[in-house]
Amino acid sequence: MTGTAKADPGRFFEDFQIGETIVHATPLTVSEGDISLYRALTGSRHVMFSSAEFAKANGFDRLPIDPLLAFHVVFGKTVPDISLNAVANLGYAEGRFPVGVYAGDTLRAVSEVIGKKENSNGRTGVVWVRTRGLNRKDEEVLSYVRWVMVHKRDAASPAPEPVVPTLVDAVSATEFDVSWSYANWEDALSGSPHRFEDYETGEKIDHVDGMTVEEAEHQIATRLYQNTAKVHFDQHMQNASRFGRRLIYGGVVISIARALSFNGLGNACEMLAINAGSHTNPLFSGDTVYAWSEVLDRAALTDTVGALRLRLVATKDHPAGDFPLKGEDGRYRPEVILDFDYWAAIPRRA
Amino acid sequence: MTGTAKADPGRFFEDFQIGETIVHATPLTVSEGDISLYRALTGSRHVMFSSAEFAKANGFDRLPIDPLLAFHVVFGKTVPDISLNAVANLGYAEGRFPVGVYAGDTLRAVSEVIGKKENSNGRTGVVWVRTRGLNRKDEEVLSYVRWVMVHKRDAASPAPEPVVPTLVDAVSATEFDVSWSYANWEDALSGSPHRFEDYETGEKIDHVDGMTVEEAEHQIATRLYQNTAKVHFDQHMQNASRFGRRLIYGGVVISIARALSFNGLGNACEMLAINAGSHTNPLFSGDTVYAWSEVLDRAALTDTVGALRLRLVATKDHPAGDFPLKGEDGRYRPEVILDFDYWAAIPRRA
Amino acid sequence: MTGTAKADPGRFFEDFQIGETIVHATPLTVSEGDISLYRALTGSRHVMFSSAEFAKANGFDRLPIDPLLAFHVVFGKTVPDISLNAVANLGYAEGRFPVGVYAGDTLRAVSEVIGKKENSNGRTGVVWVRTRGLNRKDEEVLSYVRWVMVHKRDAASPAPEPVVPTLVDAVSATEFDVSWSYANWEDALSGSPHRFEDYETGEKIDHVDGMTVEEAEHQIATRLYQNTAKVHFDQHMQNASRFGRRLIYGGVVISIARALSFNGLGNACEMLAINAGSHTNPLFSGDTVYAWSEVLDRAALTDTVGALRLRLVATKDHPAGDFPLKGEDGRYRPEVILDFDYWAAIPRRA
Repeated sequence: MTGTAKADPGRFFEDFQIGETIVHATPLTVSEGDISLYRALTGSRHVMFSSAEFAKANGFDRLPIDPLLAFHVVFGKTVPDISLNAVANLGYAEGRFPVGVYAGDTLRAVSEVIGKKENSNGRTGVVWVRTRGLNRKDEEVLSYVRWVMVHKRDAASPAPEPVVPTLVDAVSATEFDVSWSYANWEDALSGSPHRFEDYETGEKIDHVDGMTVEEAEHQIATRLYQNTAKVHFDQHMQNASRFGRRLIYGGVVISIARALSFNGLGNACEMLAINAGSHTNPLFSGDTVYAWSEVLDRAALTDTVGALRLRLVATKDHPAGDFPLKGEDGRYRPEVILDFDYWAAIPRRA
Repeated sequence: MTGTAKADPGRFFEDFQIGETIVHATPLTVSEGDISLYRALTGSRHVMFSSAEFAKANGFDRLPIDPLLAFHVVFGKTVPDISLNAVANLGYAEGRFPVGVYAGDTLRAVSEVIGKKENSNGRTGVVWVRTRGLNRKDEEVLSYVRWVMVHKRDAASPAPEPVVPTLVDAVSATEFDVSWSYANWEDALSGSPHRFEDYETGEKIDHVDGMTVEEAEHQIATRLYQNTAKVHFDQHMQNASRFGRRLIYGGVVISIARALSFNGLGNACEMLAINAGSHTNPLFSGDTVYAWSEVLDRAALTDTVGALRLRLVATKDHPAGDFPLKGEDGRYRPEVILDFDYWAAIPRRA
Repeated sequence: MTGTAKADPGRFFEDFQIGETIVHATPLTVSEGDISLYRALTGSRHVMFSSAEFAKANGFDRLPIDPLLAFHVVFGKTVPDISLNAVANLGYAEGRFPVGVYAGDTLRAVSEVIGKKENSNGRTGVVWVRTRGLNRKDEEVLSYVRWVMVHKRDAASPAPEPVVPTLVDAVSATEFDVSWSYANWEDALSGSPHRFEDYETGEKIDHVDGMTVEEAEHQIATRLYQNTAKVHFDQHMQNASRFGRRLIYGGVVISIARALSFNGLGNACEMLAINAGSHTNPLFSGDTVYAWSEVLDRAALTDTVGALRLRLVATKDHPAGDFPLKGEDGRYRPEVILDFDYWAAIPRRA
């Protein structure tokens, strides 16, 4: 037996069974090293994930790991099983972060197949999975749904009965179980004077700053998450591809955009939920990322904690001051690389 | 309210008030991850910050964090408040490192405005601040003065009464409170046979080695310090700038030059004070850094500990063997990128 | 005294004495930060070095450090003393990893000179050293022999009596002291269904994936190991060199190839021994690394643990599916950059 017989072939459309549970490989013990690298790769300054003292004064036992870092780690584990033969990552929904993640936690991932539908071309289909990230105590630290377009192994294989899951447009703010208080929040330390009451629905915020991304940076980040999809790493294969270049992992875009959003949303530290997300255009090395946000909704959760539902839009090589999104044809403008919808906690005024 | 209203506008010359205290945002809990990244980004080999066993045998409780790493972290915090609208970082003085910093310490920064003077052009002015880095116990782990040239918001605003602080040319060696002993120093482990007695005032040392700096490297380093000044990161904006390129943060130059100085000053591990520092020319990605040192002064502190006052000069794309500094016109030669004056501790011969 | 007198001149051929012990500088306390960086730089997914829970269920006290990371750290320490004036790194043999390395261990290195032989050209010679890596308790965590071609200081100096050590072709599998059990191994978590019984001697495995290497990545990795040989870092000096480019440290190649081998050898986590290794062609920034393996031998060690002797071959810019090695002239093909022979532990079927 010689050749690629032992290499992971990944799953094709036919291999996903509704209701099936997939245990993903390579649990990862996250560490302080990951926290440092995440900061160094993204420029994150949100105080809750920077200062153990601040985190302890505002509801955490010790310095928590940024939910997006945990998300990328869990996502990375699913790649060999879910998206090795994927044509495209189509969307996210129902992302939740019920339990904090800390250095020393070992994260593992399991997915349930909750939908599949063949495309009319007969060569591909869409698969929906709900992925859960678990810690050593089997607590669910995060979960999300994503759907991907996957190649069929054999175009001649019959189309299955379509199963399309019903997904909520947005996680309801009534779900957020706020056991903590922001009574000790200090704006001087968090870096922003703007609190829940200062944001209004419909408001758009230009995050001003830009970040140019290098090949080494996105590769180091993507390997940090143990996401080794070859499209991100293999220039030689990519020379013959549609883009001719290494494609930057979408999670890198999300994290850089979120870090840029500090300038205008510095107090919106904790991500409570991911409602939706689309990678609308590819990002490549040498491109510069900018970001803007729109306040989609607001919810007072407790006396000290509010939540903002935010649209986070990232652009490339196009400062975000004119808030680009879609063109007159209803399609995303070519400079728009991310349309991401999430809830973040933010302190209220006393 | 839409646009940049919530983005940090930074301070202009008029906004600084003599005697004012500025609390800087985003305390950072430094970690072992930061130590690893600092080594991986600079090539640091000074044994005191490499081996916990060596550090414990020579005065520390456990592996300390390199004072320059702590300095860059504290400096980074001041950028949004002090130098967002700066034209130039003009100098440093009176840098002191009275308390060791360890993984797990949360560092925060406060600055006092100690001087301001409008320039004759009426459009800019110089501001002096003394910045202090504090740990969780409110101990001052480091402090330094820096002065920057800052834009006025309005050229028509009246010039303030000039206040120029009196700064010492060099921290006095009599200040160093040496509570530790180097009696257990081992040259074989530190990597240099040269001790205090082997250096003479006026001696110049060619550090021989060179280090080429890549965009990804300086960006990762600068974000590690949470210094997100856009001049270092945004190629798109820089295309239209004076340089047309991303400018490398001066702290990156200091740390690389200091790491290079291991080859010739391997036993001068601990930085005791920063006397002065100027970033004399810009460094860009692809440039190669070299360094040389001059012994400016010597002071025996205890039976086992001496101090060397060192000028550390970094050059770019020009090996340092001819000790370049200034031209006949008294100006720094174009290949000289750093002129840095500091005190370092070094073991004495038994 | 001014100039390079205090810079490390390195050793020339004449400076090595048979039987001499060299204590290498700069012990390093390895940390969780190093583990994160190693993963982020190599793409390592072997579960034993990723999940503390998995490691604890399979014989370790806590998350161990990848033996190759420990190897590179120890190797890095030897560079100033052994290979600063080396022409070429000729080979490795008798690499052993008797004691696990963990975050918090301080590693130091000592070498014994075990052979030297002048070359017929009279200008260079070959030196053999056996290097040992020690932890704080003076336990030998690893050892290996390497031989390098070194410049003579003076071509006129007389040739010494040749001493060529006798080295085993391969470490014997009977040496492996397997005190642990793989009874709790879970293939779903390790990421491979293939165990000891599934591999046969002579089998060749195409690891399929490729990894393009950037200047920033190999420089960060090589500095992580405190290997500061200037050939890897100084573009300016390299412009005048044989290659005109910065040469990537061979250890970077070994680690990337080993990480790529996960796809086909996911259960072969623990490196038990290094039998031989040659860097057959240079790797440069922008090149893409591929890898294939051949099973050279098999040994059942206990009821739950087997060992595979593996040849790991890395190529550049040439997918490994045709298993390139040597041409008809018996010389390595130009795309082959590494020929590495090692033993790895792998779980047996129950």
